[in-house]
Amino acid sequence: MEFCHETKEVPGGLQSLPEHEIHEECGVFGIIGPTVREVSRDVGHGLYALQHRGQESCGIVVNDDGIFAAHRDLGLVGEVFTEQTLAGLPKGRMAIGHVRYGTTGGNSRSNIQPMMVHHQKGNLALAHNGNLTNALDLRDRLELSGAIFHSTSDTETICYMITRERLKSDSIEAAVLRAVRSLEGAYSLVMMSAAKLLAVRDPLGFRPLCYGRCEDGSYVVASESCALAVVGAAFIRDLVPGEMLVFSTETPDCAPVSYKDNCICKANDTRCPCIFEYIYFARPDSVIDGISVHETRVRAGRILASEFPAAADVVVGVPDSGLDAAIGYAAQSGLPYEIGLVKNKYVGRSFIAPSQEARTDTVMIKLSPVRSVLAGKRVVLIDDSIVRGTTSRRIISILREAGAKEIHLRISSPPFRHPCFYGVDIGTS
Amino acid sequence: MEFCHETKEVPGGLQSLPEHEIHEECGVFGIIGPTVREVSRDVGHGLYALQHRGQESCGIVVNDDGIFAAHRDLGLVGEVFTEQTLAGLPKGRMAIGHVRYGTTGGNSRSNIQPMMVHHQKGNLALAHNGNLTNALDLRDRLELSGAIFHSTSDTETICYMITRERLKSDSIEAAVLRAVRSLEGAYSLVMMSAAKLLAVRDPLGFRPLCYGRCEDGSYVVASESCALAVVGAAFIRDLVPGEMLVFSTETPDCAPVSYKDNCICKANDTRCPCIFEYIYFARPDSVIDGISVHETRVRAGRILASEFPAAADVVVGVPDSGLDAAIGYAAQSGLPYEIGLVKNKYVGRSFIAPSQEARTDTVMIKLSPVRSVLAGKRVVLIDDSIVRGTTSRRIISILREAGAKEIHLRISSPPFRHPCFYGVDIGTS
Amino acid sequence: MEFCHETKEVPGGLQSLPEHEIHEECGVFGIIGPTVREVSRDVGHGLYALQHRGQESCGIVVNDDGIFAAHRDLGLVGEVFTEQTLAGLPKGRMAIGHVRYGTTGGNSRSNIQPMMVHHQKGNLALAHNGNLTNALDLRDRLELSGAIFHSTSDTETICYMITRERLKSDSIEAAVLRAVRSLEGAYSLVMMSAAKLLAVRDPLGFRPLCYGRCEDGSYVVASESCALAVVGAAFIRDLVPGEMLVFSTETPDCAPVSYKDNCICKANDTRCPCIFEYIYFARPDSVIDGISVHETRVRAGRILASEFPAAADVVVGVPDSGLDAAIGYAAQSGLPYEIGLVKNKYVGRSFIAPSQEARTDTVMIKLSPVRSVLAGKRVVLIDDSIVRGTTSRRIISILREAGAKEIHLRISSPPFRHPCFYGVDIGTS
Amino acid sequence: MEFCHETKEVPGGLQSLPEHEIHEECGVFGIIGPTVREVSRDVGHGLYALQHRGQESCGIVVNDDGIFAAHRDLGLVGEVFTEQTLAGLPKGRMAIGHVRYGTTGGNSRSNIQPMMVHHQKGNLALAHNGNLTNALDLRDRLELSGAIFHSTSDTETICYMITRERLKSDSIEAAVLRAVRSLEGAYSLVMMSAAKLLAVRDPLGFRPLCYGRCEDGSYVVASESCALAVVGAAFIRDLVPGEMLVFSTETPDCAPVSYKDNCICKANDTRCPCIFEYIYFARPDSVIDGISVHETRVRAGRILASEFPAAADVVVGVPDSGLDAAIGYAAQSGLPYEIGLVKNKYVGRSFIAPSQEARTDTVMIKLSPVRSVLAGKRVVLIDDSIVRGTTSRRIISILREAGAKEIHLRISSPPFRHPCFYGVDIGTS
Repeated sequence: MEFCHETKEVPGGLQSLPEHEIHEECGVFGIIGPTVREVSRDVGHGLYALQHRGQESCGIVVNDDGIFAAHRDLGLVGEVFTEQTLAGLPKGRMAIGHVRYGTTGGNSRSNIQPMMVHHQKGNLALAHNGNLTNALDLRDRLELSGAIFHSTSDTETICYMITRERLKSDSIEAAVLRAVRSLEGAYSLVMMSAAKLLAVRDPLGFRPLCYGRCEDGSYVVASESCALAVVGAAFIRDLVPGEMLVFSTETPDCAPVSYKDNCICKANDTRCPCIFEYIYFARPDSVIDGISVHETRVRAGRILASEFPAAADVVVGVPDSGLDAAIGYAAQSGLPYEIGLVKNKYVGRSFIAPSQEARTDTVMIKLSPVRSVLAGKRVVLIDDSIVRGTTSRRIISILREAGAKEIHLRISSPPFRHPCFYGVDIGTS
Repeated sequence: MEFCHETKEVPGGLQSLPEHEIHEECGVFGIIGPTVREVSRDVGHGLYALQHRGQESCGIVVNDDGIFAAHRDLGLVGEVFTEQTLAGLPKGRMAIGHVRYGTTGGNSRSNIQPMMVHHQKGNLALAHNGNLTNALDLRDRLELSGAIFHSTSDTETICYMITRERLKSDSIEAAVLRAVRSLEGAYSLVMMSAAKLLAVRDPLGFRPLCYGRCEDGSYVVASESCALAVVGAAFIRDLVPGEMLVFSTETPDCAPVSYKDNCICKANDTRCPCIFEYIYFARPDSVIDGISVHETRVRAGRILASEFPAAADVVVGVPDSGLDAAIGYAAQSGLPYEIGLVKNKYVGRSFIAPSQEARTDTVMIKLSPVRSVLAGKRVVLIDDSIVRGTTSRRIISILREAGAKEIHLRISSPPFRHPCFYGVDIGTS
Repeated sequence: MEFCHETKEVPGGLQSLPEHEIHEECGVFGIIGPTVREVSRDVGHGLYALQHRGQESCGIVVNDDGIFAAHRDLGLVGEVFTEQTLAGLPKGRMAIGHVRYGTTGGNSRSNIQPMMVHHQKGNLALAHNGNLTNALDLRDRLELSGAIFHSTSDTETICYMITRERLKSDSIEAAVLRAVRSLEGAYSLVMMSAAKLLAVRDPLGFRPLCYGRCEDGSYVVASESCALAVVGAAFIRDLVPGEMLVFSTETPDCAPVSYKDNCICKANDTRCPCIFEYIYFARPDSVIDGISVHETRVRAGRILASEFPAAADVVVGVPDSGLDAAIGYAAQSGLPYEIGLVKNKYVGRSFIAPSQEARTDTVMIKLSPVRSVLAGKRVVLIDDSIVRGTTSRRIISILREAGAKEIHLRISSPPFRHPCFYGVDIGTS
Repeated sequence: MEFCHETKEVPGGLQSLPEHEIHEECGVFGIIGPTVREVSRDVGHGLYALQHRGQESCGIVVNDDGIFAAHRDLGLVGEVFTEQTLAGLPKGRMAIGHVRYGTTGGNSRSNIQPMMVHHQKGNLALAHNGNLTNALDLRDRLELSGAIFHSTSDTETICYMITRERLKSDSIEAAVLRAVRSLEGAYSLVMMSAAKLLAVRDPLGFRPLCYGRCEDGSYVVASESCALAVVGAAFIRDLVPGEMLVFSTETPDCAPVSYKDNCICKANDTRCPCIFEYIYFARPDSVIDGISVHETRVRAGRILASEFPAAADVVVGVPDSGLDAAIGYAAQSGLPYEIGLVKNKYVGRSFIAPSQEARTDTVMIKLSPVRSVLAGKRVVLIDDSIVRGTTSRRIISILREAGAKEIHLRISSPPFRHPCFYGVDIGTS
């Protein structure tokens, strides 16, 4: 493992860094309740459910009656949060957590979240999912007024914006409202001050954010609804784009105060949900802005079957991402749905590379055909997207070697035409 | 981690040890080829494919022109075999590997396989899947003649039986043939001497064992057919119960000599394949003794639908074990197949235990309902077996909380009535 | 291992934190040379030599033609800098390093040095040994002007002071000169900008700092002279209290420009070297401000022998801290010097605690008497200080059990009467 | 890390293996007491004291009322025995332990001791220090009678010899007495059966072995006397060459029965203590066969001063091995003893290799001169031996660079003329 913090010192600061190096695809989680308990475990369970949103690093900050204690490290939730590290975190009424997606080269310790800073009015812990489009401008302005940066992430910029406003504001919520008005781009935020838990969703609603309530009166905020149930919380609703929720330990029942309608932005109906949430990022059992992710994918499969039917014997999805659409395709077309490919669930991040004289390849090691399903059949193969054509080509050859007579590849997502600046990492290779 | 080797010293030796402590559920793999190459990587890939048969420990022994080199440790294949540990293994024409299943308390280093011993005629490496029923008798007899045991596994007993016969035999194959005639119970063996690779399947064929051939002329032996393709080998056939295959580096094309028909046992058609291989152990993409595991499970689902139909709206399988049968049930009943439960693939062996004040549970953290599929529906829920009633009950309550109107639980395997002494671990709790 | 970052949020910020929690006892190192090379290894060797000044954490920042790359972690130099982590650091002409001393509870990752920050004019890496007495005042003032803090260390305060001045200065050296005029207390600093390496010693010279030159023209700055030789540098001189040295890659021979005499402080002869450097912190083979540490300790032993002679047969030092003084005592008194206690060099940071029914203790496990030296003898026992009376008492009983007839304990350092605020950690237990 | 178990399969077994690959330099320890307690911690402390005898691997076997539990691994005592691994070992009245020295290439897990085997009459755990000269003959004979070997160590041969005799003997002590009569070479053994602890020293007394008694009535056996005190045991005496001590839990006070005088060998006065124990292996605070190791080295220094005097100003020892002799040289010659070289105690097994453009070397990183002691002086430099001339040459050049005017190298051990077959590893490089 290597934990290199690389920075590029150029005249005028960091603006020459290509955008894709500072993007963030992540999951955020927060909980606040009426009693002191092992909230770190609750956050841990929530982060398990959000792990698909980021596997590089994770962290939890617990608020122990105003004292913040954190554990943050590179690795999966189950690796970072052992009984030993959990034992090092105090009990409390409030905590937040974060999982972070890792991009090539940027696996820096200093970018691990939640970020935790000390400022003139106390402490602030912040977990962020999204990508600002004006981060470098804000960074420049902050540096001109004396700010120094320890990380390359937008998150530190947001911390500065909020804590600077806090100097001039009566409350943390007033500071956040002011600060986020300067932010452009995608941001779902979960924050913690000494006595309050705050959640903010950007005015265009790029990234999901929802909240729910447990039977004991605790409130939970999470990137996806699938993370509510694991801590026993019933889904209440998504945050409206441009909304801020403020939960306080001083409110007897922890019930949130909502700030929307002209607080962050003008009331509007424009929403820009990221299509990749439905296609790829989110878990199928999540419901985002009232729409089931699984249902969306099934429907995409149904439309695909209508628009691009195939004379075939069986419908097979590429696991795991193509399975939902395959079910839709099968249902619409009337063809039988089958398990034609089995994914090896033990091939993880550590991987034995094939030898130079290799007679095998990575795809074959990860995906295995079910011969009895494929042999002599005309197969409709469904995937959600074509990331690299080579993989799709290899899967097709695997089906062919397993005896498939015809293979009809169908992709459930539309073609990707333009780059995105709001937090989707578009690799160049 | 704790690596305790516990043994119980009682009058008369080890015979008072309960059977279930010395059982073995495992996967074996071997490869032999015409040229010297990084065979350790091939075995590693094969073990990836067999990982579902054993997650406690694994090992590889490479035969470097008569010199044996091993790496064996506790952990998953991807954890034990890193680039660093693979670099410590030599190239060679032959190698064998093993994955081992861990039972409570018995995670002993000294039981890690393949076993590698030195005897009067050279070295022997042996990988074993199965469970002998006369192991303690054999052990007693061996101890009376001066044998000492480093482990509690049947494998060491088999090593002794073979090496003792080797003293009196002209060849390793003659020694193996004699030795296995004394073994009672289940055993699929892959062995290696200085110049030969041997594979043996017990006369009743309890455990699977098959072999195939790569384009470069290498031969591969493996517990399941799914492990052949990952190294580019085409399936040839299963070993016949009571058969031994002998591959030699001295044969120009490595082609095996087969010993069956009265070599190990009288020619017979009695076969006792372990039903659990089809129900639970084997991977759905494997074909054992000519029968597709996936197909078997689908058929069980079909029969289930005929015998126990249900007036319902949707068929849902418990992932991963119930999915194949659910497809069969859906196909037979005409009800739509759906993904109603999503399994968290990141919750692995390290697990954050819920706190004492827990408002959640392990099942909920691992399995999440897809509301849009379940709400308001009459659901047929398919699983392969009921291991603990509590889990099934909890899954039903999760479906109910997700809005299922009716839930019809259907189990695709027959009831378990008698204990098994051939290598299936029957927990007592 | 637990890596908890704890902060206390109180009205008015951090000023209620007791001083001893933010102290720093450390070692700093820097190198700059005419050619690009594996400077990280040089710094690693330098940190080995300074390891006695701090065992909690360490770090290296390499300047790769303006790009900074760091590796910093908890642990000893030999644990943190493996071939693997060194391979992750680039070559360069300049690098700095730091070892940090750990105090109870404060083993925070965010306090690991060198600190590396981005500011309006580029990057700054900074390694600090010392303790400011006005850190909290400076911190308050910085927070009032919008600064946020990620750590609890003085180092971040110094970074802010310098980068704030940098906004208004033409050069990094001008900024440093202005900034350090605001600092009160002890500080030896080694810093790096894109093109310069800077070293500063506070006006009272509390902490040591010296420099030397290698044959290839490289310059080395280090806390102690013992760290120069390990990288092949010849000692030139200590920095004068209140001096700043500036080395630049743009100077052909890297030779430093010195700023002293009214640059940082008025020219003065007041020096306040920390007595603990000579008594305890520094290595005996170091020479600080022209005085050999070993020689100082030997002389203390000589004086002790004159002032407190003892009618005895042999002089024995408590290893390792009392050995130098014991040699002095022996030489002055004419009594033979002997090795009467052997220290177990394998008992390190991980330690098997005695059981509850203990018939042994920590002192006995670490120190063992040499019976043949002690039995029947009148022993003068020399130690440098009495940290806890219990240890001294236990050592005396060990000597007695080994047969010493009389034991005359002599302590070579004067009594400790007043607390220190400049970086010496005075435990309260 | 790499844990390779390499074996060479040759016609006729292992006899072509060069002796130096199967040698053993080690430390052994055993304890037996009247009450059940955390004996694993006692053994751990004993192994700390014996760590200098072997740093490659270590292990402890606890006898929990007849059940044996072991923890054995590669690494130092403090690394292998953490609170976690100790917690995995039961309490008991008896335990034994071992530290093992590692030679190039042979760091095999299967050679880690104590060895623990099951045989017809129960369990046997055995820790061995020494080297048999007839091991391969014995091994051949055992293999011919059906024995298989898991390791390449002599220890397994001894286990076999004892357990084979046990089949024909009424007691473990009778079996051991018979078995050891066949052993030729060096062996100090500590063994454990269900109810007894046994200690044996070979008839020529090559390797040390002594025992002592704690105040609570426990008895301790150890390679060196320095390991007795750390568990609170008072030294009783060395085992006489050719003696076996048998301690039993069935004896009320655990007091041993001694078997000597014609039991193992004919009564004789021939002793062959290994000179290297006094010169190099043993700790200076140990007393072996009535002779203090420190005293021996001091005396060697005195003789050296008489035979090879030098006109000099100061005597300096190479730490740590030359210090004792330097004290003797100084005392005899009347020259002052001084600390002229400081050893870096933090440079351990992990080491940052110098870069290719190296301006430094390993010796310089490990040893640092004390200039004030050396400059302008005529120095007598004392070391115990010359292992590699290059190191001595480099030390001399370091002293010269530090200003020494003359350097007189004196070596306290006699020249090494013939190879040794009893357990001293003679490198070929």
